[in-house]
Formats: sequence, C-alpha cells, structure tokens
Amino acid sequence: VTTRARIEHDLRTSIRAGALAPGTPLPSTRALAADLGVSRGVVVEAYAQLAAEGWLVTRRGAPTRVGSDLSFAHPTTGRTDARSRPPRTVRYDLRTGRPDLAAFPRAAWARAVAAVVRAAPDAALDYGDPRGAPALREALVAHLGRVRGAVATPQRVVVCAGTAAGLPLVLRALRARGARRVGVEDPGWREQARAVRLAGLEPVPVRVDARGLVVDRLEERALDAVMVTPAHQFPTGVVLAPERRAALVAWARAAPGRLVVEDDYDAEYRYDREPIGALQGLAPDVVAYAGSASKTLAPALRLGWLVLPPDLAAAVAEDNARGVPALDQLALAALVERGELTRHLRRTRRTYRARRDALVAALAAHLPAAEVTGVAAGLHVVARVPDAHALADAARSHGVAVQTLHRHCTASPQHPPALLLGYGALPEPALERAVALLAGV
Amino acid sequence: VTTRARIEHDLRTSIRAGALAPGTPLPSTRALAADLGVSRGVVVEAYAQLAAEGWLVTRRGAPTRVGSDLSFAHPTTGRTDARSRPPRTVRYDLRTGRPDLAAFPRAAWARAVAAVVRAAPDAALDYGDPRGAPALREALVAHLGRVRGAVATPQRVVVCAGTAAGLPLVLRALRARGARRVGVEDPGWREQARAVRLAGLEPVPVRVDARGLVVDRLEERALDAVMVTPAHQFPTGVVLAPERRAALVAWARAAPGRLVVEDDYDAEYRYDREPIGALQGLAPDVVAYAGSASKTLAPALRLGWLVLPPDLAAAVAEDNARGVPALDQLALAALVERGELTRHLRRTRRTYRARRDALVAALAAHLPAAEVTGVAAGLHVVARVPDAHALADAARSHGVAVQTLHRHCTASPQHPPALLLGYGALPEPALERAVALLAGV
Repeated sequence: VTTRARIEHDLRTSIRAGALAPGTPLPSTRALAADLGVSRGVVVEAYAQLAAEGWLVTRRGAPTRVGSDLSFAHPTTGRTDARSRPPRTVRYDLRTGRPDLAAFPRAAWARAVAAVVRAAPDAALDYGDPRGAPALREALVAHLGRVRGAVATPQRVVVCAGTAAGLPLVLRALRARGARRVGVEDPGWREQARAVRLAGLEPVPVRVDARGLVVDRLEERALDAVMVTPAHQFPTGVVLAPERRAALVAWARAAPGRLVVEDDYDAEYRYDREPIGALQGLAPDVVAYAGSASKTLAPALRLGWLVLPPDLAAAVAEDNARGVPALDQLALAALVERGELTRHLRRTRRTYRARRDALVAALAAHLPAAEVTGVAAGLHVVARVPDAHALADAARSHGVAVQTLHRHCTASPQHPPALLLGYGALPEPALERAVALLAGV
Repeated sequence: VTTRARIEHDLRTSIRAGALAPGTPLPSTRALAADLGVSRGVVVEAYAQLAAEGWLVTRRGAPTRVGSDLSFAHPTTGRTDARSRPPRTVRYDLRTGRPDLAAFPRAAWARAVAAVVRAAPDAALDYGDPRGAPALREALVAHLGRVRGAVATPQRVVVCAGTAAGLPLVLRALRARGARRVGVEDPGWREQARAVRLAGLEPVPVRVDARGLVVDRLEERALDAVMVTPAHQFPTGVVLAPERRAALVAWARAAPGRLVVEDDYDAEYRYDREPIGALQGLAPDVVAYAGSASKTLAPALRLGWLVLPPDLAAAVAEDNARGVPALDQLALAALVERGELTRHLRRTRRTYRARRDALVAALAAHLPAAEVTGVAAGLHVVARVPDAHALADAARSHGVAVQTLHRHCTASPQHPPALLLGYGALPEPALERAVALLAGV
C-alpha cells in the first residue's frame, strides 16, 4: 500500500465514520504534507482522487472540503440468512435430497478439470455458446439416450446451473409466449410452485395418488403447462402409470403451445428393476426435460441440463447468457465420455441400495407400525405412521432431523400421515441407530 | 448393453420412426423370443419396460400393441443459433469486450482448483449458502475495499455467474418491491436495457455526455433506479464527473426505495492514473454494485459479485438458489487471498496499456483524421471518424471486425460518429496491421 493510498483510506474512513462531517474544511495540502512528513505531491494526488470519487469538493481559491451529501450511516449487516443460522444439534440428518457427498469422485473430477485447464483452447475461455459447451451437449445426448431413453440433438440441449436454475428458464420462456397457469404436483417439491410464481405464472396444484399425477381432469383446469416427476415422484415415491404417461402426452398435444415439464428427479437410482425411461423420449415435441448432476455427483457442481422442443430451446438459450463455467462443463463432458459417470452411477447405486435395505430393515425391526410405500428408488423412503407429525417433532428434539409428507402438501390432505426418511447421506449403522432412536421417542 | 436393452432400443426406434404404427399388435413374447433366440423372460421384461414407459399397451388376454398416441415426427433440430453460425473470415477482431484469453493464469487456476478439490470438506460439496461461499465473500470484501474502495460485509455480498447473471437478480428484486422505470445509459451496453425489459421493467434511456450520465433531469423522469458505469462508461469511455456522482447519490436518497445500480465494468484497468473508486463506497445504502472476473480473468469462469444494500441482499439471495459452483468459488477465494489476482491484474494492466499505446500510435500514423476520446482505461478506444459507419462496413469485408458507437445509441444521435476499437485480445503488431488495413479501406 502506497502512502497516498493510506492517506485516501484514512480520509474515507474518517468521513464515513462521521469524524469528518460534511462541509468540514480540510487542512491545505502543504500543511497536511508537513504533518505527515510526506511530499506535498502525494497529498495533492490523494485529494484529487477523493474529489473525483465525490468524497471531497475542491474549489479554486477555497479550501478543500468534505462533500455535503455523505450523511449515510455505517453499513448494516442485514438479516441473517435462514441457511446460515446455527442449526440445532443434529446427530442424524434424515432430510430428503441429500446425496452421499463423501462418494463424490474427487480424484476423477480433479483429473478431468486439470486436463481441461491445461489443454482447452483459449477460445474455450470466452463467453461461449449460451446453450453450453458443444462437447458437453454432445456427450449428454449420447448419455441421456442410453441411460434415460431421452431423444435429443445438441441444438435442443441447454446446459444450466442445476434444475433449480433450469426450471425458471423454461418457465420464463413459457411466460413470454403467453402461458399463465402451470400445474404442479400436490404433494410436490415446493420449489416447483415457487419457481412458477417467481416467473409470473400461477401454480395450480394437481393431485398425486398411488399411480402418480392424476391426469383425467387436466383439461377443465385451463393449464398451459404441467410440471411432473414421472420416474420417482417427489415426495410420494410413486411412478407415473403407463396410461397416465400416454394421457399426459395426449393432453399436451390436444392444443398448441401446451408443455409437460419433466423434472427427472433422482431417476438414475432404481433398485428393484431398470429405471423407467424418460417421458421425454415418448414425446420430445411437447416435453421439456430437466436433469442434473446434483444427486449423482454433487449439488455444489451446479451442473444441469434441459432437453427442449426446438422453439423453446432457442428462447431458453437467449435467456441463459449467464451460463455455466465452461471448464466445469468440459470436465463433465470428459467424465461422461470416458464412462466414468456411468461407473460412478453403478457404484453409488450399490451404496444407496444397501442403505435403503438397511433403513427398511431397521423400520421393520424397531418401528413395525410403519408401512413403507413408493417404489425402491431414489434417496428417500416414505414410511406411513399414524402420528408422523408428532413423531417428527419429538425426533428433532432428540437430534434426528426428519420431514413429514404433509410438509409438501398444498391442497391434498387426504394422504395418510407419513415420514420422509432420506438415507443418501448416512451409512447403514447410522441409519439403524437413527431409526432405533426414532422408535424410542 | 444387455440383450433386453437392445430389444427395447430396437422397438423404441421402430415406433419412433413409424415402422411400427400406433395400435400395431406385437408378436407374442414366446414368438419373439424364439425368433431372436433369447429366453422368453428377457422379452417379457422388455415389453413390461416399454409398457411402463408408454410405448406399448398391454391388456390381459390380448396381444401387446404399440401405444396409440405416438404420432410424433422425428425430432427437428431447431433454428441454428446465431453464435454457432460459421463467422465470415475475421483476420483482426477489434470488437469490444474481449479480454486477452491467452493471459488467463492457467497454472495458478489449476493449482487452486486442485487444492480445493483435494482439501475442501464434504460439506462444501452440498448446496451451500445462496449468497455464495463464505470464504469467497470474505476475500471479496477485503479485495474490493482495497482495490475499488467498496464498502461491504460478507452478508451484503452475493456471488453470481458474472454481471450478466447478477444484474437480472437485482432487477427482479427491484420489480418485486414495486419498481417500474429504470434509467439506462444512452449510448450504453445493450444488455442493460435488455435485462431491464426481461425483468418486466421499463428501460428509460438517459443521455451520456463528456462528463458521463446526465443527471440533472432524473427527477422529472419518474425513475425507480438508474444503471450506470461510472468508472469507465461503456461505450463512450468517459468518467462520471465528481459533481454528478454526488448528484446521483442525492437523487437516490431523495425518495425511499430508489437505487443506483453500478456496473463496475472493466474498472480495474486505468492507465493514466489510479482508477476512480467505486460509487458504492460513497453511498453503500443506495448503490448496488456489480463486478466480475470476466475481463480480469476469463468470461468462461462465470464468476461475478454483487454488493447490495441490506434489504436487497436478502431478496437477491433468495432468488439466487441457482448459485455458482462452490469449487470455483473457493478457487477464486484462494487466488484473491494469496494476492495472485492482484499480481495478475498488475501484469495484465501492463499488457493492455502497451496495446492501447500501440493502437493509439497506429491511429495517429495511419488514420490521422481519427480523434481518440475517452480516458485511457479499459479494453477499447473510441476513435471519432466522420465516416465511421461506412468504414466499419468496408473493414468487415476486409476481415477487420469493428463496431461503431452508434450501434449502442438508443435516442441520442447527437454523438459524433466513432469507431469502437477493442484492443484486449490482440498483440501490438496485430493492432498496427489491423489499423493499417482499416486506413487502407
């Protein structure tokens, strides 16, 4: 730090703190220089800098003064964010949506990033295509076709910062083309309805039963779009039944501009059979598909993807100028191309399956009244228990963080009370202990 | 790929291609199994899978048929994105906004990322604070205070994917609290007005003259916010005059809820003197500050930051759930903390200064009619020439990509015609040759 910078800093601080009130004349540059034992030129420059910034006002033939409109207080810190509040002591965190962060393939990721940073051409460091890096979009087309039965071309893929960033892009594009009402699952992921509202659209709850979203009365609800999690509904864990898949597509095709938004939530994890293919593969003309690496690799990567009908792809890409870091995109492309993502999925599927089995066994042993519903998939189990709400409250005070199904209901209170038990982040012995603790509450 | 997966794939492809029309009965599982020489169980499973996905319809006692609502065409590719169109041959790219991508500190970045991937705790791989990684926000508070005179606390910083992602966040928060009209610079960066419009607000052009944004008639325009580039106005290259800085702050404080949005565009690069400090430092209560690493490191990093008044920080953080990859954030934090960013700025400032000098010298030698205006700063020069538009057109057909000032004007045609010459991406000899080519057109 130069002498001049220090003089500027001290003056700014004094003015900001109120020690130098607005309008106060400053010592002459000559006097201050003598006081500080520096050359006069340094003080002249510091005064000029602060005058250019508006802290000081200089007038020919008059002393330099503190500016007159600097009456602001100290910066305040604002309200503490909910997420940064110190949590109560949680010994076992069974909340949903938490993958096994310890399973993140650090070595493979570090290798991929290092190779990209070393070898990517300079052009890859520029703003880039708003749809995302071509290499990643090509890798995703092949991967999603193989793993999820999705039908895509690179032009119809838009890389985004996870599903939470991708859904608003789709919704804003819908809003721009005149959509107004969007069906959301009830019970469902609250973020669906919130994103719909933030995009200036009206969320309309649509009931979910044991065969998934109830589609037989969509027509009379005057919807422009429907958001759905067909492969493993959140939170009920059911799969959208085949005839409903067909009916949903038929609804979308019955009038121009209708869209189904498929949130392919944790669809890579199915333990009793092959995962159900994406709805998008059945009707790429009317389904917008959203997937991400948040559950399969790590949420912190902020890497997701949309596969869109052509008209929507262009509109969404235009809104996506913010984009996703290219180096991360290229690293993911390398992971996909080398088959490392598929191997990682295979490994984690084994891990999660063992965790789910341990959790279900622990429930049978310690909490036999609990009835496990939903298919063997994803990262959480739905356990029906009569007193779910009271149990969850009591569990929390014993250090077991757990949610209830009803937290995710909007207008459908007919669902039997149930606990949602996320098992992604806990090894088997911890799950066993957590359930024992839960049963003892 | 298993036999079963291959059967499914072949059937999906045939249905999609129309070779198997809707309603077509399929061979019995027994017959197909015999045909293919596989066990019947494999075919049963494949049919069941495709039925679950909606491709096939099974009914007890009747043959399995192709679903009846599968009448979609082949996926089309959509319109080609403008950016992916092959460009005309460009020998010298003098467009603005292009930093020297070859200067990106690859080794330092690779080191920082590798260290983070190796050492970050598992918790850093989770969703994280919507404001951004605490380590980066702390590093930015210190860095921006030192380099830009900005006043911040970590609670008031929100990390975003570059300025293009940050400005919409601020604008949406303004809209949510009832703002309607936002002043944008004219001439100005088109993205300002576009972002205002996309957020559902009305952009109101405000004239820019030789002393920057003209602030004396803001009051009568009924504005809720004003977007401004005080340190180095884009595209004119002028600096907002001290009395206008004060007047802008006074305007903002004259009524509750008013906001100045400071886009601190390429402010780190000033060659004739120290950069003017951020307006935000003068009035952190009414100025929202936006900066990024796009010009100083690389656009592809998609790393930027907002410093906000407290009420706005909370609202913006809530909308920012999409966030920015944590590993990149932590890598940038490490670069800032170790002083590597400051050293990089010092190095690139020397590079760009030499390039600017070479460009200005080449203009004097080859195009003496051109008058260079604006301060010695940033990554482009404004050169007034009477026939700027015709010159730019002719230059393009000779392989020199160059923009005119008028491209960025909305309602202010009183600016003299001028070329905008970006020198960030070209070494001195190339700049000299480009100007010679331009003069010869």
